[in-house]
Amino acid sequence: MLLFNSQVSGNCYKVRLLLAHLGVEYTRQEIDVVDRSRRPELLGELNPALRIPTLVLDDGRPLAESGAILWYFGDGTSYLPEDRFERAKVLQWMFFEQYSHEPNIAVVRFWVAYAAAPAPRAELDARRKVGYAALDAMERHLAGREFLVADRFTIADVALYAYTHVAGEGGFDLSPYPSVRAWLDRVASQPGHVPITA
Amino acid sequence: MLLFNSQVSGNCYKVRLLLAHLGVEYTRQEIDVVDRSRRPELLGELNPALRIPTLVLDDGRPLAESGAILWYFGDGTSYLPEDRFERAKVLQWMFFEQYSHEPNIAVVRFWVAYAAAPAPRAELDARRKVGYAALDAMERHLAGREFLVADRFTIADVALYAYTHVAGEGGFDLSPYPSVRAWLDRVASQPGHVPITA
Repeated sequence: MLLFNSQVSGNCYKVRLLLAHLGVEYTRQEIDVVDRSRRPELLGELNPALRIPTLVLDDGRPLAESGAILWYFGDGTSYLPEDRFERAKVLQWMFFEQYSHEPNIAVVRFWVAYAAAPAPRAELDARRKVGYAALDAMERHLAGREFLVADRFTIADVALYAYTHVAGEGGFDLSPYPSVRAWLDRVASQPGHVPITA
Repeated sequence: MLLFNSQVSGNCYKVRLLLAHLGVEYTRQEIDVVDRSRRPELLGELNPALRIPTLVLDDGRPLAESGAILWYFGDGTSYLPEDRFERAKVLQWMFFEQYSHEPNIAVVRFWVAYAAAPAPRAELDARRKVGYAALDAMERHLAGREFLVADRFTIADVALYAYTHVAGEGGFDLSPYPSVRAWLDRVASQPGHVPITA
């Protein structure tokens, strides 16, 4: 199995983290997240969106989008509940992550820490504001809860952990979010956890 | 069952379209998509993201994010395949829609056709460019295919149809996309189809 990967991408880290928990072996091919010029050549036949992570299964079939890959490997394991409503709630948080969280928290982090040129100040401020709204939503939900869904560690936690735990790299201050911070510690203390650098 | 709905929202239309296909009854409460000031009061206890669609099931449990709602109702029906890989491909296209398609095609449509104030020109142009890239990805994939996944009409088609078929309201020109246009016609001709106005 081959993962088109970037070591700094939280979206790729989600896949690496779940596969580490599951003990699934794979090889990696590193893809540049700044210079995207080679993506049509490398990914064109595999993922029409030309994004990473893109995974090629052992039988050659490609699968893309971090959420879809998490679901594919999580289904049938303890990381995805069996109950129909709980499964939908897992997806609710994963879609929340891709729509309301990642485009702000991850993109601000990319601009601040990795991009070749700085983003316009107004755009940075706008995304940071919406990113804080996403953190507010998580804080309200996690107050009094151990994990996002079903009182246990699921692929929803994997999906939200990836960019929340490095939000500080984009200048987000997590000190007003005690429930989020306690949840981050809880995720990081799961047996089999690996850091984003692994 | 109660759907917090907006009649012009493609995200809400996805839910209405699938429920129409399935013959599921529900009531609607219309939510303003321009003035969002009442959302904390109306949706605060139901959906931490304060977005619509938000659905309240008959037993009172809330479910949000269009993709999660489509999955909840689609699973176990002909609109979602049984095969593990095909299910992951359905999710791949649904995450693609929420990350690469909706934030550009739907947001440009909103700015052009519904927002109280026009968006800055540079922002509009930037989103339109990425929106066309999403349409390019769909066109490449749909060339030679009847539907997005598994050669049949699934919730992935429901998810992508919603904003693609009204992309013209945002100034997107679909004439260079023959495979997308043929697929739009194919979706609209499914038995039980309802328009966004229904």
